[in-house]
Amino acid sequence: MLTQQDNERLTRIGPDTAAGKLLRCYWHPIAAATELARHPTKLVKILGEELTLYRDGHGRLGLIGAYCAHRRAKLVYGIPEGDGLRCPYHGWKYDGAGRCVEQPFEQTARPDRNLKDNIRLPAYKVEELGGLIFAYLGAEPAPLLPRWDLLVERNAWREIGHTVTGCNWLQSAENILDPVHVEWLHGEFRNFAAGRTGRTERKRKRIRHVKIAFDLAPYGIIKRRMLEHETEESDDWKIGHWLVFPSTQKGPDMLRFRVPVDDTHTAQWYYSVHPLAEGELQKDEEIPLYDMPSPVLDEHGQPPVDQLDGDVDPQDNAIFVSQEPIYDRTKETLGESDRGIVMYRHLLDHQMKLVEEGKEPMNVFRDPAANVCLSLPTESREHFLTGRLGARARQSRRYRSILRVPA
Amino acid sequence: MLTQQDNERLTRIGPDTAAGKLLRCYWHPIAAATELARHPTKLVKILGEELTLYRDGHGRLGLIGAYCAHRRAKLVYGIPEGDGLRCPYHGWKYDGAGRCVEQPFEQTARPDRNLKDNIRLPAYKVEELGGLIFAYLGAEPAPLLPRWDLLVERNAWREIGHTVTGCNWLQSAENILDPVHVEWLHGEFRNFAAGRTGRTERKRKRIRHVKIAFDLAPYGIIKRRMLEHETEESDDWKIGHWLVFPSTQKGPDMLRFRVPVDDTHTAQWYYSVHPLAEGELQKDEEIPLYDMPSPVLDEHGQPPVDQLDGDVDPQDNAIFVSQEPIYDRTKETLGESDRGIVMYRHLLDHQMKLVEEGKEPMNVFRDPAANVCLSLPTESREHFLTGRLGARARQSRRYRSILRVPA
Amino acid sequence: MLTQQDNERLTRIGPDTAAGKLLRCYWHPIAAATELARHPTKLVKILGEELTLYRDGHGRLGLIGAYCAHRRAKLVYGIPEGDGLRCPYHGWKYDGAGRCVEQPFEQTARPDRNLKDNIRLPAYKVEELGGLIFAYLGAEPAPLLPRWDLLVERNAWREIGHTVTGCNWLQSAENILDPVHVEWLHGEFRNFAAGRTGRTERKRKRIRHVKIAFDLAPYGIIKRRMLEHETEESDDWKIGHWLVFPSTQKGPDMLRFRVPVDDTHTAQWYYSVHPLAEGELQKDEEIPLYDMPSPVLDEHGQPPVDQLDGDVDPQDNAIFVSQEPIYDRTKETLGESDRGIVMYRHLLDHQMKLVEEGKEPMNVFRDPAANVCLSLPTESREHFLTGRLGARARQSRRYRSILRVPA
Repeated sequence: MLTQQDNERLTRIGPDTAAGKLLRCYWHPIAAATELARHPTKLVKILGEELTLYRDGHGRLGLIGAYCAHRRAKLVYGIPEGDGLRCPYHGWKYDGAGRCVEQPFEQTARPDRNLKDNIRLPAYKVEELGGLIFAYLGAEPAPLLPRWDLLVERNAWREIGHTVTGCNWLQSAENILDPVHVEWLHGEFRNFAAGRTGRTERKRKRIRHVKIAFDLAPYGIIKRRMLEHETEESDDWKIGHWLVFPSTQKGPDMLRFRVPVDDTHTAQWYYSVHPLAEGELQKDEEIPLYDMPSPVLDEHGQPPVDQLDGDVDPQDNAIFVSQEPIYDRTKETLGESDRGIVMYRHLLDHQMKLVEEGKEPMNVFRDPAANVCLSLPTESREHFLTGRLGARARQSRRYRSILRVPA
Repeated sequence: MLTQQDNERLTRIGPDTAAGKLLRCYWHPIAAATELARHPTKLVKILGEELTLYRDGHGRLGLIGAYCAHRRAKLVYGIPEGDGLRCPYHGWKYDGAGRCVEQPFEQTARPDRNLKDNIRLPAYKVEELGGLIFAYLGAEPAPLLPRWDLLVERNAWREIGHTVTGCNWLQSAENILDPVHVEWLHGEFRNFAAGRTGRTERKRKRIRHVKIAFDLAPYGIIKRRMLEHETEESDDWKIGHWLVFPSTQKGPDMLRFRVPVDDTHTAQWYYSVHPLAEGELQKDEEIPLYDMPSPVLDEHGQPPVDQLDGDVDPQDNAIFVSQEPIYDRTKETLGESDRGIVMYRHLLDHQMKLVEEGKEPMNVFRDPAANVCLSLPTESREHFLTGRLGARARQSRRYRSILRVPA
Repeated sequence: MLTQQDNERLTRIGPDTAAGKLLRCYWHPIAAATELARHPTKLVKILGEELTLYRDGHGRLGLIGAYCAHRRAKLVYGIPEGDGLRCPYHGWKYDGAGRCVEQPFEQTARPDRNLKDNIRLPAYKVEELGGLIFAYLGAEPAPLLPRWDLLVERNAWREIGHTVTGCNWLQSAENILDPVHVEWLHGEFRNFAAGRTGRTERKRKRIRHVKIAFDLAPYGIIKRRMLEHETEESDDWKIGHWLVFPSTQKGPDMLRFRVPVDDTHTAQWYYSVHPLAEGELQKDEEIPLYDMPSPVLDEHGQPPVDQLDGDVDPQDNAIFVSQEPIYDRTKETLGESDRGIVMYRHLLDHQMKLVEEGKEPMNVFRDPAANVCLSLPTESREHFLTGRLGARARQSRRYRSILRVPA
């Protein structure tokens, strides 16, 4: 249970907040690269700020302020050119540093005056890796974009899911530190829902947690579980799963990035990596992008069980939303199952304090040699809750496609 | 015309308000029993409170707080078991009294500690009668659930309609005390709308009110009307119609319950009872549930006349909404047609004062012998505005079905 | 760049604001006459006030308060009669001056009492011209409804478009004083969008503005442009285009009226006049009414280019909305292209001051002889950006019909 003040401190992400300052020390995914292939601009909201993401005519990414300095048309309507983004309203052009580099009529009518020279839009670093586009909104010099293992895996077939869930980022992140919910939400509740929908083939074998443990590790927190009939030799216990600080989940075949849109909305990016099938090949521009559901109650106040009797992610998202836009931690009752969450809150608090003292928090990488591939060991795919939760492969076939991938 | 203060006093329904305290002395319908047959949980909002209604594995109803005490997942996603409702997130189980009776991982990891013992969710009494589920949110001991005649009528064919109307409860209740609107809204306006839609067969004979009267009666207020060409011997005058205190309308074949959801939304439950046709039988689980419209203006600011040229209820609901979320009684002009409304406001005020003094208001029943069947005499069905408004039988065939009733 | 205070002064339109008082000196369109043929009442919101527009049984227009004085039902549900509008709830009747002229049950029950005599709803002048219905909400005596040339043109084929755009009126009005945006928004951006959609036949020849100029004129401001390869003899320069004060645009074949709904919504009426084709005839009741799009970003934060690769109006509306509900003029950077906007803001300020001093602002006409046809010369249709933007004729064929025009 937290005080209201502590709950505010951990959840609010504006530029002047403790959590906002911490989260601005990291790169966050903001788009799939294929979205810019569909249209080369996109309005992005992240950490409470609206920004214009674009790819210029030379293929370079830019991330600048949402509004033209002239008469505040949104630059997402802009025209990408070889070396920048041109405002659609009067043709002012900006480069990737937010500088205004052209004002056609101004330069025609008053070639002597340099109205453009003092204009500077917000501009942030943006990089592409593995089909995702990442942004860094913090102070310079920017750290390296971390090359987590799945993002750089070769010879893999990848797919990307996306949703914006109507809740604060922290409740989605705390769920990562919560082994026991797998037993219930993804086990008993799933089976209950499958019973309601009649799709009993979706039911899974019952599991029971005997003990759980959490370790601080170089990249975050490793959570461990031991189930009934397992020993300390099981992968779940020996290897465990990652919370990659500050808010990413690592499974054997998936990274789940959780990014604050604003105080009460969280963008979730599901990055899955599957073994390539025989003769299969995938270019970055062929990565499917699908719409992960964030289910809500139906119009009669009843659960939409047909969205809840299978994959774990819609189940998680329904629960996150059910905790209300900002989960009221002054009214919680934490127990043994929440030791990972308590550890995570302390870690967040500690890292916030480091940032407040002008120091660098964890997972800020500056040595390229150490960033070739950041390995996050998990159990092998075959053992990932085998026979319990089943394979999540090819989610993109099960959900609504966001982009039509060229055939 | 009321002062702003009086309007607030009569309309606001929070737990600390005068009207809220009065309304908490009564049982109110919150669901149709068939809704729990579709899915055994439902999030209910009543009198500004969000609650979880469920039916446990033994068929017993429960009504407890919306959120799990652990990490505040909504219990509407819960799994009903033989003796309670289990939270889907980590399996904490609650009984109908709101007690936490099981915490699986807590009991495994710390069998010595009894984290659950001090947990108590809000819990309210809930009962089923005639296919409706009623709740009581007031102080203990709870009174009896009133057995109004239509609710306990045997050998009848019943149907239930439901809508949530975007307005305060009081404007829907005041309409019950308003005989004259039948002449206009359900007569002249209906005929005007039928002229616009071209369904002239829906037009009704013109009626004119000559006099109206209102009497305080044991269960509420009886309203009487005398139309042109009628005498004091007519049923409309001699018998009249009921406002069943605090907010229910009784017609010859229908009870209309009006229940505050919050200050600006009102749930309306339409409980109709028809004579059984030859060879007809109806079990509770076969009671149709339909969606009564609450029409609003179309996108051009014009009335949706095709929803307004027939049944009286959509007409009433359109007017309630048109009075704005909370009807501004500081700007009204009451006249002779509103004498029933004035009497009702005085009755409300008086009953609120009784509650404020710690006394019991009217219609609180505690003697089972006197609650076998509470008879609310009205004219016979045949005479109910005969030839004027026509039979409303089988509304469920005319509106969108909420539940698919098993064939 | 303005101060926050000046931006408020120019944009806010409530009854006690400077801009609100100025705009209340003018007639504004509020409906197409055909809308009242579909249904004879319409709820209108203009300058922040909700009003009931209706046509009575004798064909006369009325514009009175939104609510019945009795129990505040919305009069848009009313029944028009020969000499007024009758409330649907209890039959109270109002005339066009807002007087209550009948209260059926009150007059039956208390013929001695004259409850109705002191009731007076707000009532405003309303007139029809050329298929549009105009309202005047200011002080009496009302000026004449201006007979702008296109509104009274004979032997013409007319069409009316309508949209409500989610932004303050001033950003839509300022766009009229902005010649240079035609080069970019309606040229380069259009061509970019047509490239994206593949409808390359929609692309237009590139234009470049060499100089622009603005003149105060009897009816408002004339804007002039000279393009590359043009001389001072071109119509664009010699004749120019009109901002008809306070907020109407005049093109060779169109009047665009921009009317505040409230502080953050603007109704736009597109009144087009085309030469009649051989054998063509058009009665007022045959004027098509169509829904002009006000495009917004799609659910992925990307521009809906398929709505933006053709006609100028959807392009303008997308930009107006993109400037946010109220464009923040404390953060703008005005230049040479904005000299017309600066002149317009000064003109607005000056006219507001006149009104504050109790004087009449410009374009208030009181002499019928001078109001037969107010001529707003523009270049001939043939020359209107010929070969550049192309004819906009028959917009109603390209957009969603609001009214089914009788065949």
